[in-house]
Amino acid sequence: MRTEILYGIHPVIEAISANRRDIYEVYIEKGKTSQRVKKVLALAESKKIPIVTVKPSALKSITGTEIHQGIGAKTSGYAYARLSDVNDKIQKDHSNGLILLLDNILDPQNLGALIRTALCVQVDGIIIPKDRSALPTPAVSKASAGALEHVALVCVVNMARTMNTLKEMGWWIVGMDKASGQSIFFSDLTGSVAIVVGGEEKGMRPLVKNHCDFLMSIPQTGPVSSLNAAVAGAIAMYEVFRQRLFLKEKMQRGR
Amino acid sequence: MRTEILYGIHPVIEAISANRRDIYEVYIEKGKTSQRVKKVLALAESKKIPIVTVKPSALKSITGTEIHQGIGAKTSGYAYARLSDVNDKIQKDHSNGLILLLDNILDPQNLGALIRTALCVQVDGIIIPKDRSALPTPAVSKASAGALEHVALVCVVNMARTMNTLKEMGWWIVGMDKASGQSIFFSDLTGSVAIVVGGEEKGMRPLVKNHCDFLMSIPQTGPVSSLNAAVAGAIAMYEVFRQRLFLKEKMQRGR
Repeated sequence: MRTEILYGIHPVIEAISANRRDIYEVYIEKGKTSQRVKKVLALAESKKIPIVTVKPSALKSITGTEIHQGIGAKTSGYAYARLSDVNDKIQKDHSNGLILLLDNILDPQNLGALIRTALCVQVDGIIIPKDRSALPTPAVSKASAGALEHVALVCVVNMARTMNTLKEMGWWIVGMDKASGQSIFFSDLTGSVAIVVGGEEKGMRPLVKNHCDFLMSIPQTGPVSSLNAAVAGAIAMYEVFRQRLFLKEKMQRGR
Repeated sequence: MRTEILYGIHPVIEAISANRRDIYEVYIEKGKTSQRVKKVLALAESKKIPIVTVKPSALKSITGTEIHQGIGAKTSGYAYARLSDVNDKIQKDHSNGLILLLDNILDPQNLGALIRTALCVQVDGIIIPKDRSALPTPAVSKASAGALEHVALVCVVNMARTMNTLKEMGWWIVGMDKASGQSIFFSDLTGSVAIVVGGEEKGMRPLVKNHCDFLMSIPQTGPVSSLNAAVAGAIAMYEVFRQRLFLKEKMQRGR
């Protein structure tokens, strides 16, 4: 059975709260008495998870990093979601969903940041390709401030085939492409939409780009003119979220 | 005279292009022949900057880092802008400006990311407090993908006093505060506005918060519900930018 060592306050708290992983042990660095550490301890105790106090050097060795914030946990491996479950849940919950497709996001920091933002705007599912993506490691859970523990992350072998499946399910697929003349700010994104964000260096792969229904860009200006992948994804997700908030408010006002 | 060692493709290219720093020498790692390195070499040659070829170990030692991408440059220190110049330029150029105030942004990665986004939305000036901020080091230039070399960055001793000065100059000051019930998406941000973004851990200082004209929040949902500081700043800056693009388009259509 595959186990993982999570580290950092947020990943451990959120893994316990989300209740999706089995948590076998929580490690606390000897002498740590901050409020945040106490919060983890209380949470672990309430769930009857064994707590092991360890020396700083041992915690570094257990977690394999120095940025553990005095906390670690041995857990079961990350549990991926299935695309069909994500789709079913949307059909049941509400009419218009938001899915994020990430192609070529190779930096765990960027993947974590995108997952963190995705959780804040209630993205229904995040799809990554097995071979062209950072994977949901403990480092990504840390970079996501624990958001990884809550989101529905789907890992697929063939991104293009998955995009075809999404289209059959009734999703429109919008690729973020700097070269497109169509601005996201002047496009209607209130329907069920899957947004594709490409990676740090090369953007999305040509085959993935070809499978998009639309290509849209985020307006930019200035001499350098390139957004970080995590920021570009955040702007795109928030524009969808904003448009839906507006629509909701408009409907509530009965206009 | 203070010198700095920039490193990385983007910082060196943008420092040369921006033409604000004196560049004394460009360092190239021996054997590097990529297109991007060749571009730096051609640019340096066109400006008659001496090019020094060094061994990888020497470049690591000169730049003090391993993430130098085969390129470094010895330059004059970072040149700050003055608030009065920023304000004068806005008065001359156009009627409505956008200033970004960063309080407690201590992580160079976050400062760099915010500066990178700021350049993409034509922020007129970025203000940081001398004692409560990461400073514009070569690491920040790298994290900003060289955007630091182009923006007008103002460093002030007393943030609250600067906010009073801004108010006297006619600026409205909007603080981003998670606890505020006023959403940026339902607020008019088309006038001259200074946006305050607080730091990673503690947000902005209470005194800074008290000096804001308005407090507004970015709508969020879900169980973790906290955006990274660089992402929160990006969403706020882009909302201002988006509203102005809309207004411009509306006026051009003569409505």
